[in-house]
Amino acid sequence: MSRDPAQMTIVEASRAIESGKLTPSALTDACLDRVEEREPETRAWAYCSGDQSRMAARLLDSQSSTGALHGIPFGVKDIIDTVEMPTEHGTPIFTGHRPVRDAACVALLKEAGGVCFGKTVTTELAHFHPGKTRNPHAATRTPGGSSSGSAAAVADCMVPFALGTQTTGSVLRPASYCGVYGYKPSYGDVSRSGVFECAASFDTVGWFTRCVEDIEIVRRALIRAPSKPLQPAELSQLTIGFVRDVAWSKVEPATQKLIESAAKQLGLAGASVEDIQPNAGFEDIAQHHRDIAGYEFARAITWERTNRQRLLSPKLLNGRCEDGLRCSYERYSNAQSELAVQRMAIAKTMQKFDLLLTASAPGEAWEGLEATGDPVCNTAWTALHLPTVSIPAFKGESGLPIGLQLVAGFRQDGQLLAAAESIRLALDCQV
Amino acid sequence: MSRDPAQMTIVEASRAIESGKLTPSALTDACLDRVEEREPETRAWAYCSGDQSRMAARLLDSQSSTGALHGIPFGVKDIIDTVEMPTEHGTPIFTGHRPVRDAACVALLKEAGGVCFGKTVTTELAHFHPGKTRNPHAATRTPGGSSSGSAAAVADCMVPFALGTQTTGSVLRPASYCGVYGYKPSYGDVSRSGVFECAASFDTVGWFTRCVEDIEIVRRALIRAPSKPLQPAELSQLTIGFVRDVAWSKVEPATQKLIESAAKQLGLAGASVEDIQPNAGFEDIAQHHRDIAGYEFARAITWERTNRQRLLSPKLLNGRCEDGLRCSYERYSNAQSELAVQRMAIAKTMQKFDLLLTASAPGEAWEGLEATGDPVCNTAWTALHLPTVSIPAFKGESGLPIGLQLVAGFRQDGQLLAAAESIRLALDCQV
Repeated sequence: MSRDPAQMTIVEASRAIESGKLTPSALTDACLDRVEEREPETRAWAYCSGDQSRMAARLLDSQSSTGALHGIPFGVKDIIDTVEMPTEHGTPIFTGHRPVRDAACVALLKEAGGVCFGKTVTTELAHFHPGKTRNPHAATRTPGGSSSGSAAAVADCMVPFALGTQTTGSVLRPASYCGVYGYKPSYGDVSRSGVFECAASFDTVGWFTRCVEDIEIVRRALIRAPSKPLQPAELSQLTIGFVRDVAWSKVEPATQKLIESAAKQLGLAGASVEDIQPNAGFEDIAQHHRDIAGYEFARAITWERTNRQRLLSPKLLNGRCEDGLRCSYERYSNAQSELAVQRMAIAKTMQKFDLLLTASAPGEAWEGLEATGDPVCNTAWTALHLPTVSIPAFKGESGLPIGLQLVAGFRQDGQLLAAAESIRLALDCQV
Repeated sequence: MSRDPAQMTIVEASRAIESGKLTPSALTDACLDRVEEREPETRAWAYCSGDQSRMAARLLDSQSSTGALHGIPFGVKDIIDTVEMPTEHGTPIFTGHRPVRDAACVALLKEAGGVCFGKTVTTELAHFHPGKTRNPHAATRTPGGSSSGSAAAVADCMVPFALGTQTTGSVLRPASYCGVYGYKPSYGDVSRSGVFECAASFDTVGWFTRCVEDIEIVRRALIRAPSKPLQPAELSQLTIGFVRDVAWSKVEPATQKLIESAAKQLGLAGASVEDIQPNAGFEDIAQHHRDIAGYEFARAITWERTNRQRLLSPKLLNGRCEDGLRCSYERYSNAQSELAVQRMAIAKTMQKFDLLLTASAPGEAWEGLEATGDPVCNTAWTALHLPTVSIPAFKGESGLPIGLQLVAGFRQDGQLLAAAESIRLALDCQV
């Protein structure tokens, strides 16, 4: 074995396991070694028990392939229930809590042969208050959030993939900051059974990988579809809409330049790239999202709010929670209706485009560990329920990763990933 | 106190408590007496601890009003998490399970001053396999399901209201069979945080009461809106669509006659009643619902399916589960798209009608306790996400209750209840 198995993608590791060059145990051991080496700096894990993942891997050593993820270790954001490991939701309210069952997404990955490797750090209840994780590329910077540990663990080669969740920009932003692939499926495609509810209208299970093909492998396991290799789209067949919407003004000029040069490069490589004009009312989507997310969150966490108030951070309690309680049903209902109109408008737009291209985040990861960055580039796509992927396409002025965000039409996830693979090839992106 | 407090509606009990004629403790004690008397026959409760509800009520005795439900006991379907009581989901898989927090709906009712009285019997994982509950009007008959115990407990005056859930017809049908009011809100209006997930695209928290006003009081507590008395609609201002759709052919002739005579009566009382023609494709809604519900359920219960298979009933495992696993993502996705089209079509129809009128169930409660009846009259409205209410309007040939179902446009829940109250008055319905 010339290459460290911990560095392998799912595709590479699966091939090595299938050909007998690697065992699930050896892969898990390599990942555990990597955790031992890097965890003191990166702090990606809320819980990581070598004994448990070693035992799970050993059981798979002697079996022939159990599924598309046979022997592949994965991390699980700590707002997702696991029966064998604590699930603490990033708050002292749930210290030591052991769920009675695995979340559906965890059970589906195990059913496909995956090895549940540990629980990754989340911000407090998947909101703003950060956990202990640092950016693997620069320990003084945030890894992004709320799926902080999942992004960092994959970036730092501790696991080939990890589950996160996104209600605003909690997968795409950390993927961009940590320099890995991040994917948020179409709303509703992956079961949220056993995932802590923040805002039911937006909450989506997503994941981080180190290549596009791996996203598709995990996706097929989670929707429980038969395996099928990802075929890159023909670049010359793609019509790409370049989005410079209201969020674009928040994107740093240096990042704007990178995205613009990528758009040009894709055009030169044969894709049709056109500017798109956002629909009327598009600029209000973020406010509707805020109203709905606050309204739903403040109600969803009523038990915590009324029984464990002093354990909630002031930021959460006086910010999103207060705002959400103040939002009336009429305002909430109106915001929902407006978003329904915007979803129909974007569906019409997407008849003309195979995908949209924009920034994943305003720039490189923020300096400091007190805040997890700005989800401004992600809110609208989450609110519109569209599938999105972040490709680690660029390095910024400080040498840190910056992602390119691709967005496709509702339930066009397969097409999105096929296009993402051809765009990655055209831009020659490497994690 | 001339009247047994256990017989009181929320409105009546609240008035008595506010005027000092009744204490929360006395109300809870009256309900517990009623449980002692009736539970051996009705078997509505999965868990009912007098000590716990007595203690909660006593704490409220000395306080002035804590909210719109001050001192009002309520039952909770046993697929809804409660921190102080077991939550067993109607299956031996979860025997004795104690959740770490209250579901949002339970915490919201407690926040409004409600007394969590106990856990009501559910069918296995809110599906087909019945629990132990009997119809309070005829012990040899089903109470309906899956919210069996909640409907029976309210009908039998053990609690003034109880929470259920509906994924197909699990609130409306038992309401009809047990002769109480049953209400399913617009999809998404009430948080499902802490409710066992069956099919995320349809699952809705609903409830049972003994009058229309009580539905509105509970609704306002659950959306956390300020209290506001329900004003009955002007009957002469209502345009009612009489639905005799594909499900109508499954309604027993005697029930058809009852509904038809009610429609006539409402017309005579001043309402405008017109037949409505279902939109093209309406007849396929039930199949789309079945595809989606099966697909989502089979994935949501992956942990149970892969770890506790032998504890699942063959009916569940070989029926809905197998069907759901066989349903492809493409079929699922197509069914979702078709339903989206139907939702837009019904929204257009509802511009012409204030509400729709049809049967709540095909007839009286089925004889026997092996099956919970047919949800055929409810599936389409659940699939369309519309709010519906069942009014206990009739007695059938065996003297057992039969409900009248009213349906309103999406998020027109307030209007639906205002109209339901005026229709109840016009038809002179009494529980």
